[in-house]
Formats: sequence, C-alpha cells, structure tokens
Amino acid sequence: MNNPQLDTDGQLRHLLSIEGLPKKILNQILDTAESFVGVAEREVKKVPLLRGKTVCNLFFENSTRTRTTFEIAAKRLSADVISLNVSTSSQSKGETILDTVDNLIAMHADMFVVRHSQSGAAHLIAKHVPPHIHVINAGDGRHSHPTQGLLDVFTIRKYKPELHNLRVAIVGDVLHSRVARSEIHALTTLGVPEVRVIAPKTLLPAQVEKLGVHVYHDMDEGLKDVDVIMMLRLQNERMNGAMLPSSEEYFKTYGLTPERLALAKPDAIVMHPGPMNRGVEIDSTVADGKQSVILPQVTYGIAIRMAVMAILGGGTGAAL
Amino acid sequence: MNNPQLDTDGQLRHLLSIEGLPKKILNQILDTAESFVGVAEREVKKVPLLRGKTVCNLFFENSTRTRTTFEIAAKRLSADVISLNVSTSSQSKGETILDTVDNLIAMHADMFVVRHSQSGAAHLIAKHVPPHIHVINAGDGRHSHPTQGLLDVFTIRKYKPELHNLRVAIVGDVLHSRVARSEIHALTTLGVPEVRVIAPKTLLPAQVEKLGVHVYHDMDEGLKDVDVIMMLRLQNERMNGAMLPSSEEYFKTYGLTPERLALAKPDAIVMHPGPMNRGVEIDSTVADGKQSVILPQVTYGIAIRMAVMAILGGGTGAAL
Amino acid sequence: MNNPQLDTDGQLRHLLSIEGLPKKILNQILDTAESFVGVAEREVKKVPLLRGKTVCNLFFENSTRTRTTFEIAAKRLSADVISLNVSTSSQSKGETILDTVDNLIAMHADMFVVRHSQSGAAHLIAKHVPPHIHVINAGDGRHSHPTQGLLDVFTIRKYKPELHNLRVAIVGDVLHSRVARSEIHALTTLGVPEVRVIAPKTLLPAQVEKLGVHVYHDMDEGLKDVDVIMMLRLQNERMNGAMLPSSEEYFKTYGLTPERLALAKPDAIVMHPGPMNRGVEIDSTVADGKQSVILPQVTYGIAIRMAVMAILGGGTGAAL
Repeated sequence: MNNPQLDTDGQLRHLLSIEGLPKKILNQILDTAESFVGVAEREVKKVPLLRGKTVCNLFFENSTRTRTTFEIAAKRLSADVISLNVSTSSQSKGETILDTVDNLIAMHADMFVVRHSQSGAAHLIAKHVPPHIHVINAGDGRHSHPTQGLLDVFTIRKYKPELHNLRVAIVGDVLHSRVARSEIHALTTLGVPEVRVIAPKTLLPAQVEKLGVHVYHDMDEGLKDVDVIMMLRLQNERMNGAMLPSSEEYFKTYGLTPERLALAKPDAIVMHPGPMNRGVEIDSTVADGKQSVILPQVTYGIAIRMAVMAILGGGTGAAL
Repeated sequence: MNNPQLDTDGQLRHLLSIEGLPKKILNQILDTAESFVGVAEREVKKVPLLRGKTVCNLFFENSTRTRTTFEIAAKRLSADVISLNVSTSSQSKGETILDTVDNLIAMHADMFVVRHSQSGAAHLIAKHVPPHIHVINAGDGRHSHPTQGLLDVFTIRKYKPELHNLRVAIVGDVLHSRVARSEIHALTTLGVPEVRVIAPKTLLPAQVEKLGVHVYHDMDEGLKDVDVIMMLRLQNERMNGAMLPSSEEYFKTYGLTPERLALAKPDAIVMHPGPMNRGVEIDSTVADGKQSVILPQVTYGIAIRMAVMAILGGGTGAAL
Repeated sequence: MNNPQLDTDGQLRHLLSIEGLPKKILNQILDTAESFVGVAEREVKKVPLLRGKTVCNLFFENSTRTRTTFEIAAKRLSADVISLNVSTSSQSKGETILDTVDNLIAMHADMFVVRHSQSGAAHLIAKHVPPHIHVINAGDGRHSHPTQGLLDVFTIRKYKPELHNLRVAIVGDVLHSRVARSEIHALTTLGVPEVRVIAPKTLLPAQVEKLGVHVYHDMDEGLKDVDVIMMLRLQNERMNGAMLPSSEEYFKTYGLTPERLALAKPDAIVMHPGPMNRGVEIDSTVADGKQSVILPQVTYGIAIRMAVMAILGGGTGAAL
C-alpha cells in the first residue's frame, strides 16, 4: 500500500497523520522548524517563502485557536490566507465536502488546512486534490492532529535533546484525544524508549498497548522518574454523560499537583496542548510553575506550522 | 433616464445588473477578464493593480462562497480586503443600511461588494455613494447577480466562441434565480440567437417570454440540438412549502441525466452556478462528466471579478 | 500608585482609558493623528510604520464597527491583522481570559486591541502582558472607550481649535455610555472651560458633578449658546425594562431637533458616536444637516487609531 502522505520520490506531499511518516520526514520537519524559531520569536519578522501563494483554512468545525496559529504561521511566510468557516456555509445548502473542495481547487488555492469533526476527512480531501495542492490535517475527529504531535516532540527535543534516553508519561483522556495518538506515534518513531500512558480504563482505547506504550492506572506509580509529563485535556465536550467523571473526582485521581510532580525526575518538564481545565487535569501552581513548558509549546507550534507549510510549498527553510 | 451604472463618459462606474449594460461594456469586461485568466490559473501569482486600495465586502446576507471568490480576486489584485458580515452587526442596533454605508465611506473604502437578500439594495447604495466609490452587486434577492452572469457568458465564449451561432438552454428554477435573469440579459445582448428556458410553469416568472426567450415545459424537447445547457439550482430555501416539488419528482422531470444530455449536440457543454443538488437537478455522472465545464466556471469567475474590480479601480488590465 | 498606561519614562505603554492620561500624552496622540489625516482621507494610501508587526483584535464581545476601524487603521500602517472573536471560542471550553492571552503572547502578537463586555478587562490584560506588548482598550463594559473619546476631541479641535473658549454639551444616556466618561475626561484635561451634561436623572450616574460637569435636566436650557453638541446613543440594549423610556417620549424631551439646535450658537457643531437611533435621540434633518460632523468623526477615528498604534508600536508619526 502506498503512503498518501508521500509522493513517489518519498517527499512530503500532505501532512495527514504522524502514523505512517518515516523518521526521516519527521526529522526534516523538526530540523526545518528549528530554522523558523527565530521568526516564531520575532527576531526576524517575516520571510517571503510563500509570497503570492494562497493558504486556505477550511474549517468544517470551529477552532479559533488552531485557525489562528495556522493564520499567523502562513502570514509570517508572506502567504495570503483565506479562512472559510464551512459549517455555516454551503454545507447547509446540501453541497458535499468534495464539491466545496472542488470549488476551492478551481479558485487555485495552493494549500488546504483542514479541520473536521469526522475522522478521515483530511485523508478524503487529500485523495481528491490534484498533484500541485497540499493538504494539512488540522484535526479530524478523534483521529489525528499531526502538527500538535510535531510541536510536542519539537518542544521535548528543545528541552531534552537526548530522545533515546527519555521516559515520557502521557496522562489523562487518551480515548477522546486526537493529540495522544499523534504524540505516541511521533515519540516511538523518534526512538523514545519508554512511553507511558496513565489513565483510568474508561478513558483508554481498547488494546492501547499495541501502540507500544506501558499502561498505568495509578498516577503516582506512572509518574515515577519520568523526564516528561504530557497532560491531556479532559474532553468533556466529546463524552456522553454516563462515563463523565466529576471534575473533583478526576482531579483527585489524575490531576497533576505539585506533590505528584515531585515523583518525576527533578528536572522533568510539564506539557499541555491547551486549552487547560485548571483544577481539573492540572493544578494552577504546576501549570504556571517553573517546570511548565506549556507556553513555549505554543511558540514552537508557530515554527512547526511554518516548517510544514514551507516544506509543502516548496521552500525547505534552506532558503533562509 | 440615465444609467446608474455608467458615468457621463459612458464608462463603467458600478456593476449592478447586466440589464442596462451596453454590449460595448460587456465586451470590455470579457476582454479584460481574458487578460486575467493567467492570474486566475496562477501562471502569474498576483498583479499590483489595486495595491493600497481597500475593497469592502459588505454582506448583509451570508455567502461564504461568493465572499471567498471576491476576496481571492481582490487579493490577487493586491488590494486590502475588509469583510463585514453586517447581519450580525449594527443592523441589529437599529442602524439603517445607508448609515452603515456612510460610515464605510467615511473610512474611505474604495469599492463595495454588496450582498443583500432584498432586490435593489446594491442600487440603493450605488445611488448614495460619492463619485470616487464603486459598487459591485454580489447578489440582491431574486433580482440580479451580474458577475455570475458575466462568468457564465465568459465560459461559453471560451468553449463556443461563435456566440451568434449558438442555441442555449437554461433549465430549472428560473423564478427564484437571480442568476437566470443575468444570464438571459447577457446572452441576448451579446447576440446569441436562441435562448430557451425549460421549466414547469410554477417555476417561471410571469411573462418570461418578454425577455426574448423561448419557453419549453418538456425537457426532452427543449434540450434538442442545443450547444449549451445551463442548469439552475433548485432554490429550496427560497420556496414556500406549497409549491415545492419533491426532489425525486423534480429529478424525474427536469433532472439532467446522461440520457437527456444525449439529446443536445454531441459537443454541448454543461454548466451550473453551484452549489449543486446532486440527484435533484443534475445527475452526478453528468456533473463530473467530460462535457461539464462547471469547475472552469469557478476559475473564470475569479478572472471576471478581477476584471470588474480592475476596470472600476482604474486599471483596465491593459497595464498587464 | 503608578500609572499602568505609562512606562517609567512617562511614555505611553497601553491605552486603557483617558482618565489618568496626562495632558502631554493626549496632545501627543492628537498631534500624531494630525499627521495621519492624509492617510485616513487616502491622499496617501498606506505607510509602512508597522510592517511585519501583528495586531491582534481580541474581541470578547462582537462589534463589527469598532473591529473594522481598528482593522483599517492597522492595515494602513501595513501591519498584519489577526481577528479573534473569542466569545465563540476557547472561552466556551472553560479557558480563562488570561490563558487565552498567554497563548497569544506565546504566538508573539505585538499589540492587542481588546473589547470586552466587562469593565476592567483591558486593564487586567495590560497588567498581565510582558513589556514589549501593548494593549488598546476598544471598549470595556460601561467603563471606557478611549479611542472614541480621543477622536471626539480631535474632531472638536479640527472645527473649534480654541478649546479654552468652548462650551460643550453632552446629551443623553450618560449612565450607560462608556463614551461619555472618556469624553468628559478628555475635555476637562484639555482645558475646555465648560462641559455640560443634559439628561434625565435616571440616565445619569450618581455624583456626576464630581467629574467637573454642569448638570441640566432641561434640554432647551442646557443647549443655550453651546459651541459643541455631543449626542449619545440611547443604549436600549444595556437597560433593563423598568427604566426604559419609550422612544417617542425620549425624543420629545431629549431628541435633537432643528428647533433645539437653533438654541446653540449659530456655528455649533453636532456630534454622535454612532450607531444613531434616528428619531429617538436625533432628528434625521439634524443628523444629515450642515452642522453635523458625525461622518468626519468616523474619518478622524481612523487617524486617531493609526496614531495610537504608531506611538505604541514605536513609530511616532514623525517618520512621515
């Protein structure tokens, strides 16, 4: 089976999920992002790599936060950005997703950043577009959110460059998280030897061990001696009432408190993809504490998105 | 009566409806659009014709699709674009349309692209603005949608340049279609000798023959030997329940199937303004078939909108 | 107590409210705006003062009108503009305002234009941001709307340069108006000797006299011999039912009619912050009459917003 994300030369053609990306491509994205950190931190204001290109934010599900990061990244590459909130648009007139996409192709957009509540939507669109158009998955259902996974490993690499020595814990609602899957694939592909997931059984997918992770239900045990703690958001809005733990109960069992953080290595870093539920999955003292790298994740997210767009758009960052 | 669309020298001042535009102006727009096809197809990325000008998308009715085409066209001319979705804005605070417009005039926007659910709204605004501001009607109620009409005739001219030899059929819900009126005016003005409309009586305006068209209620008869088939969208959302045919019933009588298409000339082209109701007014085999020019219509729509803005903004395309 | 709007050198760091701004700073803004009138009126199309900077419109409350003026002003300074309508965003996922702001800081926006329904929101954000980020209050609850106050005094200065000789009347719903407070502070700081407020008791804040104004409940008496009449919008949407006067009743007692206007000086100017309730607080004849400067207020609003952004962004307008 050929890989829909790569072209026949093995170069990146779409970014749909980290699953299936060779280590070489992961490293190309991370290394290119390195060259954009200066722009993300505004030492350099903008680069002209995508001047004259049109990046189309195609959001079938509203997400101001994600849309904004892609919009900022695209503008710092000097692209024109068109944002379409399609939920309120032609879909309600009975047009299919692919008809909407066909129209945007005919308008000659160069790149689609796709967000959709259904798993597989970005893959469907990627299969449909002509060779010169690139698709970036900005989150599809529970399935995948690859730029988030990439920015997470990029952040880890910045603080803990020796990936092959790390012990990483992913804590919380793995079941409803598109981020967790992307993270696990990225970490194992890049050679992190020990990835743990810590969660109650009800918030874990079936056979999660097959992803190559160690499962813990007890948080104190799972956090012991880890280098990196990646907290997940409790996805209240994706749960149905029956399985929903109360916030207090959840915090008592799986909330990251200063006491629990002390079980990890003394220089462990704390991560969260945001938006945070303070007092639910994470204590404010920890979120704002000196081991937290939650805000650098956001900055590096701009660098990663610039890197992906630059690689897909034909500029590899080497031009810098 | 003087023509609100032309200035005293007979030059285009506003684009409000195709009705009333002299043949000379129609041809000027079509010829200018010809020079923008290269930009619409991205052989050339952008042109600086409207650099520093502000195009204001003034949408009193939401239409992501139409807004996007104007936004892309304006950005490819290097204009700044401000989009106002006014339905959710000051109108709800009791401000009149003209007060809203007066404010935008005072902010020195250079061009208004106006969409409104009421017929005549763009004319009202055009009458009100000072001489240096130009108004483009992007659809007003059932009345007019001139850039759609223009891109339709532009598309026909690209595929069938000998307009004076053509037989064109417009099929479907003429009554609720602002596109149909624009198309009919454009075709007859440009010398197309035979324009047919094919529809049930309930979906035709009274005295439609006065527009210079031949009326058919039987689709098989109406399609015979035509060069161009322009399908219309069944405007369910503009109908009241009583007159609404069921989708199945409508498709059986007026849907464009491969069998019916075979009644037209062998090289006939199939058009649709979008968004399509597949299986209601058009069969997917036809919509995606080799006689379909539905997606080229979208591309040429960018060229037409660039042409209209460039002419109104003072650059005629000759600068290219 | 040190002033959160000024840095240690006494330079403007944030624009949060006119209250607390020294006269020197007020005059700096007004003088800088003078240099931008040419851009606001489009004799000059754009200036490159903020090229490469990102202005973030952070609107927790929808206001198309205010957002548009800031967007136009920022684009004429060549800034990139990111607009976030946060009411429909992460706030609904339980993220706090400051978490949202922290994320935007990490994305390295350079300036926040903040609109919020609660008084003090812009102050809260200004206290939180790092030194290189600037905050502009674009309206917070009933509290303040400083750029509106500034454009009002700028407009007065353009038509009536001798501020120390003026008699100004502010008429209407002072209680619910964030504009009125800003205006009163600006006028008294700049040395206008007589500021009157004209309103029923129910639409005046307690102890309004402490702001240095003269209170009139009778409109005919209050308008006598004034140079400037600043009408306020009847804020129906901020009132509860009980205290709401009927429109007819209000117009009869406090509506500005041609007859009442005649009581002011013959060359008095009429102002309104918009959007107007025609026939409620102002008669159309007066709104559109030759003494009205309501639309020049809008144009000067662009110049004022450009001036504030240019000063905060490091270009003082002297660069012109």
